[in-house]
Amino acid sequence: MDRKESTSGEDSLIARYFRPLATDPGAFALGDDAAILRAMGEDIVVTTDAIVEGVHFLPDDPPDSIAQKALRVNLSDLAAKGAAPAGFVLTLALRAAADPWLAAFARGLGADASRFGCPLLGGDTVSTPGPVMISITAFGRIAAGKMVRRSGAKPGDRVVVTGTIGDAVLGLDILRGGAVAAALADDVVAREMLVGRYRLPQPRHALAQAVREHADAAMDVSDGLAGDLAKLCAASGVSAVIDVPGIPLSAAAATVLARRAAGMEALVSGGDDYEILCAIPEDGFEAFAGAAGIAGVAVSSIGTVIAGRSAPRFLDAQGRDLPLLHLSYSHF
Amino acid sequence: MDRKESTSGEDSLIARYFRPLATDPGAFALGDDAAILRAMGEDIVVTTDAIVEGVHFLPDDPPDSIAQKALRVNLSDLAAKGAAPAGFVLTLALRAAADPWLAAFARGLGADASRFGCPLLGGDTVSTPGPVMISITAFGRIAAGKMVRRSGAKPGDRVVVTGTIGDAVLGLDILRGGAVAAALADDVVAREMLVGRYRLPQPRHALAQAVREHADAAMDVSDGLAGDLAKLCAASGVSAVIDVPGIPLSAAAATVLARRAAGMEALVSGGDDYEILCAIPEDGFEAFAGAAGIAGVAVSSIGTVIAGRSAPRFLDAQGRDLPLLHLSYSHF
Repeated sequence: MDRKESTSGEDSLIARYFRPLATDPGAFALGDDAAILRAMGEDIVVTTDAIVEGVHFLPDDPPDSIAQKALRVNLSDLAAKGAAPAGFVLTLALRAAADPWLAAFARGLGADASRFGCPLLGGDTVSTPGPVMISITAFGRIAAGKMVRRSGAKPGDRVVVTGTIGDAVLGLDILRGGAVAAALADDVVAREMLVGRYRLPQPRHALAQAVREHADAAMDVSDGLAGDLAKLCAASGVSAVIDVPGIPLSAAAATVLARRAAGMEALVSGGDDYEILCAIPEDGFEAFAGAAGIAGVAVSSIGTVIAGRSAPRFLDAQGRDLPLLHLSYSHF
Repeated sequence: MDRKESTSGEDSLIARYFRPLATDPGAFALGDDAAILRAMGEDIVVTTDAIVEGVHFLPDDPPDSIAQKALRVNLSDLAAKGAAPAGFVLTLALRAAADPWLAAFARGLGADASRFGCPLLGGDTVSTPGPVMISITAFGRIAAGKMVRRSGAKPGDRVVVTGTIGDAVLGLDILRGGAVAAALADDVVAREMLVGRYRLPQPRHALAQAVREHADAAMDVSDGLAGDLAKLCAASGVSAVIDVPGIPLSAAAATVLARRAAGMEALVSGGDDYEILCAIPEDGFEAFAGAAGIAGVAVSSIGTVIAGRSAPRFLDAQGRDLPLLHLSYSHF
């Protein structure tokens, strides 16, 4: 029996599609049972997030963007913690090894691994009769003790978010043929932008250093701004007041609101934003905003951290509380 | 709205079942988006393995043993690489959050995290309409540059395995009501031992130091001895000759063979053994075997590494090649 016969389908698909992504020497070209991650005197930041077909992405989504979303939701966590990407491991559960799908998936993953300086270190490929699932554990490096926690927000800090909020949940509604699709029937550019925001998060890695230097607390907005802010406040033992008209919206989201196809409460509780939410001391805000400008990341001050332990309040222009029935997406 | 309402089902199940397992300070009691892993001047060894309902475990398997298997298949990799456990992250994909199942799952996971000194550092819990899946990424620490690779085997090294080979595949056959169940109809103790070997691997962590000190190459036997030895040889650029009668079998497996309910080729290609396969230089074998004895782990010398690049040969008592159609389990 020759060597070729001893190579299983699983091994050959790993060799064909994933070995080219394993550019770090610690990955041993995926030819060993484990990888080596060198800390180089820094702390290793570890985060893990999985995406599931039908839940976090749709069966017809392009495979390259599915791969990119799987990696980027993790890179978003690293950025919010102030860490620089160091590598990732991948678990891929597939019904069948379909070459065109896998080739596109690996192409998207490789492009992002290269773009974000985050090489593939290892993984596991398993068969499943169920939905495709991608679980990624990503690693970052940060100076010892410097990871930005959820728990450091202080009364008086500004509540700051990057980018725009609510686009992804509108994009998902469009893909599902909901009211947003109808409201934007005349605007293909807006529809595509919103769908793109659902499919392809933009991790704010360029802001990691500024977050590390200026933020008292930070996290990424993955489950919805309202729920994630509540978590940050709870971890910090504080509350917050948010000025709803100050929440940054894309022009497309503003149009959807104006046409009453979705309400503000859906935008702040919808999730999948992958923006950074952070608490910045008043005297550090100017420097933070300046650094963000240089990094090319829009930041908006949307409220203030206050003392207390009540849930954060979202106040409209008239000072009325936004009715929030569900703060965020929950799997159960 | 009070804080309680802001806690989603997902958050509360994490708090209830998994926070008690997050005993490492770097886990931040699962209250942040990421964990910190301190390398303390050593290399971090990273390994990831997933198990899928219906593939790696059966729907009726006890939830505590499912959790333990998920962790142990990773601990087995760390042991084979010579590393000491440092922690793990968990992705759990569930159809529904059933409290009794989760309570038992977390109890098993916690018992093993404690037993093996491998605390939970973080994770992600997602819903799936498909089979339950558990993906674990485990971390170990090892002196810089000392990870034992697959690739260091040299001609003249002894091929050594721990424990016994083939029990797990027989246990799976019993659970499926196959020929092994009938062959052992009169022996409940043997049946239960084999089923236990399928459900609950015994990672050879006690041997990690001896592997690190003595092995030229090592890996764990997860996909089948024949296929895994072929991988180790390929990575090392060598071949091997195995003395099939020297392969260690449990009394139960020997009985199954004697009663012709399974053949030797099934035992060496079945997988799920989670024993350590390693190449030990002749002049180090005595010290290795002594260390194994002190660690309480049985080791057997089953053959010799030879020069060449042909596939390893498995020779019976008459010097005939064992007919191996499938070297190991492949998902695709």
